[in-house]
Amino acid sequence: MVQQKATNVFWQDGKVTREDRYQILPQKGATLWFTGLSGSGKSTISIALEKALHKLGMLSYRLDGDNVRLGINKNLGFSEQDRKENIRRIGEVAKLFSDAGAITLSSFISPYAADRRDVRKLHNSDNLMFIEIFVDCPLSEAEKRDPKGLYKRARAGDIKNFTGIDDPYESPYNPEIHLHSDKMTLEEEVSIIINYLKDKGIIAIDR
Amino acid sequence: MVQQKATNVFWQDGKVTREDRYQILPQKGATLWFTGLSGSGKSTISIALEKALHKLGMLSYRLDGDNVRLGINKNLGFSEQDRKENIRRIGEVAKLFSDAGAITLSSFISPYAADRRDVRKLHNSDNLMFIEIFVDCPLSEAEKRDPKGLYKRARAGDIKNFTGIDDPYESPYNPEIHLHSDKMTLEEEVSIIINYLKDKGIIAIDR
Repeated sequence: MVQQKATNVFWQDGKVTREDRYQILPQKGATLWFTGLSGSGKSTISIALEKALHKLGMLSYRLDGDNVRLGINKNLGFSEQDRKENIRRIGEVAKLFSDAGAITLSSFISPYAADRRDVRKLHNSDNLMFIEIFVDCPLSEAEKRDPKGLYKRARAGDIKNFTGIDDPYESPYNPEIHLHSDKMTLEEEVSIIINYLKDKGIIAIDR
Repeated sequence: MVQQKATNVFWQDGKVTREDRYQILPQKGATLWFTGLSGSGKSTISIALEKALHKLGMLSYRLDGDNVRLGINKNLGFSEQDRKENIRRIGEVAKLFSDAGAITLSSFISPYAADRRDVRKLHNSDNLMFIEIFVDCPLSEAEKRDPKGLYKRARAGDIKNFTGIDDPYESPYNPEIHLHSDKMTLEEEVSIIINYLKDKGIIAIDR
């Protein structure tokens, strides 16, 4: 063992950059931010998209209630402040994943336009792509589906401040992608997103 | 546009798994947790390791003060509670990155054994690899280097609760990798880690 050579040139010529990382992946990093009512189909679409991207050899990663609400955000409740902090942290994590090179799929109701705008700014200020995907579905249809039985509980008063019932959902003004999950098939929805990613040069494939 | 076919078989056969992700990368995900005094060389080594891994075509991602303290943890200070929460969140983010498939390099003093043990448990309970790397350097040497002038300020009383001065550093009992940054060259340190990753099957390369 010898003394560390602080002047060693080999190690001194800069850090690995985002572009360096993107170079070893078949894609560019980006955040795909699914927003919509509970039951609108956000998770269903992001799970199907994840599979389609994987079949194309792309690295994507899905942030959802399972790995976020039970993990980094497990110390947050549902007060207004905590819900804001919930989205802020998810936005920061998504930004890190995009910076790393993953196609990052965030799937949360995220009902407030201001919170989504903050996450967009966070990405744009660091030259990262933020793609807002509005999973649009009429409340009546989402409530009819009610896959987790949450609307029923909200109507019964067992859950307070439930988006769409006694808390507002602020629709995106100008989302990059606008899906109508009550009228489109899952295949159509996934194709629209895949084509968008191709058009923007995030993924480069022939299909 | 037609009605969504909820029974569509193609989309119903499960989610993309961790193993699926690892399959499209030349590596397995893992968290490399650098711990040691301020000035011990954690960042220098992780930056050099990141470069070495990139040259091997591996996707790694570095979590450090620049992208964490100014991002997801920007609402945390330096109280005991906040420092604990700081490490907890970093551990959760590292876990997500390992799950995604990245070789994740975490570079923070993380002075408390209990906090590091919690992050280890978090990984192990989900079958993710946690590799603790003790960047061991005598306080006298770290203080002599003082790359950010922090020891000087701590000695002058301008910074309180500074690890090594008026706050303890709890050395790892049984780290996976034990580096002596006052005696080893950067090349040696990086080689030790690369060889460890090879031995554990995290990276598969001939060199």
